[in-house]
Amino acid sequence: MIDRRINHKDLRDFAAKLLTAAGTDAQEASTIAEVLVWADLAGRSTQGVWRLTVLLPRLRGGFVRSPCSPNFTRKTDAIVSVDGHDGFGQYVGHVAMARAIELARAGGMGVAAVRNSNHYSAGAYYAQLAAREGLIGFAFTNATRRVAPYGGLSPLFGTNPVSFGAPLPNGRSVLIDFSTGAMAGSVIRKATETNEPIPVGVAIDEHGGPVTDPKEAQRATLLPFGGAKGYCLSFLVEILTGVLTESLMSFQIPTMHEKIQSAARIGHFFLVIDIATLLPLEEYYKRMDMLVAAVRSSRPQTGVAEILIPGETRWCHYTAQLKDGVLLDSKTIASLKALAAELKVVTPW
Amino acid sequence: MIDRRINHKDLRDFAAKLLTAAGTDAQEASTIAEVLVWADLAGRSTQGVWRLTVLLPRLRGGFVRSPCSPNFTRKTDAIVSVDGHDGFGQYVGHVAMARAIELARAGGMGVAAVRNSNHYSAGAYYAQLAAREGLIGFAFTNATRRVAPYGGLSPLFGTNPVSFGAPLPNGRSVLIDFSTGAMAGSVIRKATETNEPIPVGVAIDEHGGPVTDPKEAQRATLLPFGGAKGYCLSFLVEILTGVLTESLMSFQIPTMHEKIQSAARIGHFFLVIDIATLLPLEEYYKRMDMLVAAVRSSRPQTGVAEILIPGETRWCHYTAQLKDGVLLDSKTIASLKALAAELKVVTPW
Repeated sequence: MIDRRINHKDLRDFAAKLLTAAGTDAQEASTIAEVLVWADLAGRSTQGVWRLTVLLPRLRGGFVRSPCSPNFTRKTDAIVSVDGHDGFGQYVGHVAMARAIELARAGGMGVAAVRNSNHYSAGAYYAQLAAREGLIGFAFTNATRRVAPYGGLSPLFGTNPVSFGAPLPNGRSVLIDFSTGAMAGSVIRKATETNEPIPVGVAIDEHGGPVTDPKEAQRATLLPFGGAKGYCLSFLVEILTGVLTESLMSFQIPTMHEKIQSAARIGHFFLVIDIATLLPLEEYYKRMDMLVAAVRSSRPQTGVAEILIPGETRWCHYTAQLKDGVLLDSKTIASLKALAAELKVVTPW
Repeated sequence: MIDRRINHKDLRDFAAKLLTAAGTDAQEASTIAEVLVWADLAGRSTQGVWRLTVLLPRLRGGFVRSPCSPNFTRKTDAIVSVDGHDGFGQYVGHVAMARAIELARAGGMGVAAVRNSNHYSAGAYYAQLAAREGLIGFAFTNATRRVAPYGGLSPLFGTNPVSFGAPLPNGRSVLIDFSTGAMAGSVIRKATETNEPIPVGVAIDEHGGPVTDPKEAQRATLLPFGGAKGYCLSFLVEILTGVLTESLMSFQIPTMHEKIQSAARIGHFFLVIDIATLLPLEEYYKRMDMLVAAVRSSRPQTGVAEILIPGETRWCHYTAQLKDGVLLDSKTIASLKALAAELKVVTPW
């Protein structure tokens, strides 16, 4: 088995076919495939099509449902609550963010508070949905408990990522998407494949000692990033996604290691602001250009080639892979090939 | 000179009298005094009445104006823009947050985007204004450039703090308020008084080497907290407070070291969500109790007495000092005494 580059359209079709062959509603499958391939294009393969090897067994086990027919309840002109009915997080997240965008277009602000969903892959995807329409977008989600509170030994919060997007005049966007844990869970999982050691300060054992072996780190407690500040952000995300949505809170979500498998009932929180209600988009872009120029012309430290704008690396990967094809590593190729054989779907290679 | 404890009401009256004696509008003075004494009560004396020694000269210099008569422009049902007319940040911040709260009460969401303001002291004050009315509140501000972008050597962003409040059933609130720089500017200033060394990883010299002398650190470049993630948050805060408000951006705000003094024209961004539009407040409080209980019953690391809820330390100071009086250190007492003599105001001690 070797690494391969696959055209993103072929990869999207292939992912959608795998999903429908496993019983996913066709419209949902198309959206889920788009979200996964977006993550691959952006160079976040840990949130990409590789996830089908986890998602499809969960669908067959009945822990994820399709079609899920999300239920929207309009709370005010600016706020909607969404019941995801245990659907795929990628689909539920996409339609919920689309609704928040509609609300923001109509009244300047939109919030979609989502309950009973599942892992939604890269939060940056939802943030850029807003940004590409000239809006500011926030996306938050909780997740299975992995991260200790500041000063604690036991996992309580999910990696509770914070995602943010703001449009740039060049058609790209400022994209922020980070785990409030010291390392993203998906990055640790990836490290188990290469057996790369985890840096000290990321994971601890039951006595608080450092865990650097990636396989042990997968079951170990993670620390919040940046000490008390990261803990505060985890807590904030939990209030938005776990408390306000009436979904499960991170510490209530069943972990993958628990024997009793059940619906994850994860909560998401999307918030959109229509820039044009505050200042003309043209003026906004002029100001963003000034900000970007100030950062770019700033003096770099020795050994730093250039100072990057948040999301810049993602967009570089995106543009390159759109042209050259999406790079899938040999392990992903092998797992997808096995899934395809089982589901009688033709592979795109 | 010795440290003293002053009753918070007496301290508020004293602060208001100093402000009015220096030419501040009486209504504004009362609000500013409240904001400053709140910070003192909460144990954040770096943002408290001590600041009068900086604020009053700025008023007399014409760089801060009073009365400022902020101008509100309703953009949509949920969004208002505010021109602070170079008024005191504490007053402009207070009235802007009050307006965002009104909007949220009416339609579920409220945003106040503020331009042409000044330093507003502790962001937690504005967040708790929302929280104490059963709302979720966010407060963001930019500030004079102090913090380098990730990988950079030169200051570009202010310490751009993130502040958040969410009500708790016990009448307190979850309060988050942190600098996106590795240390708050006010904490470094405080360290110059005691000559306490600054930890490595906070400030750098022009070659990127660590600066640990607090006096040097005051003029040195600060690093973002938590590496690239803190940089991303600084950037996010700058978009909300500098770009969207049409105020100055951090890197354009005149520093105190620059000879040409002028209006700071700082931007703030307040965002409020009415919890009751999403779920009954009773149910919200039940869920917050579950979250708080889960954190409190979590196993602490060796040497950690208990795991704290964000804002808990602030509220402990607040309750104790409300009862015992606000502790002012000898240096603050001396500066306030000098101001009082100059302005012919009777001291409360």
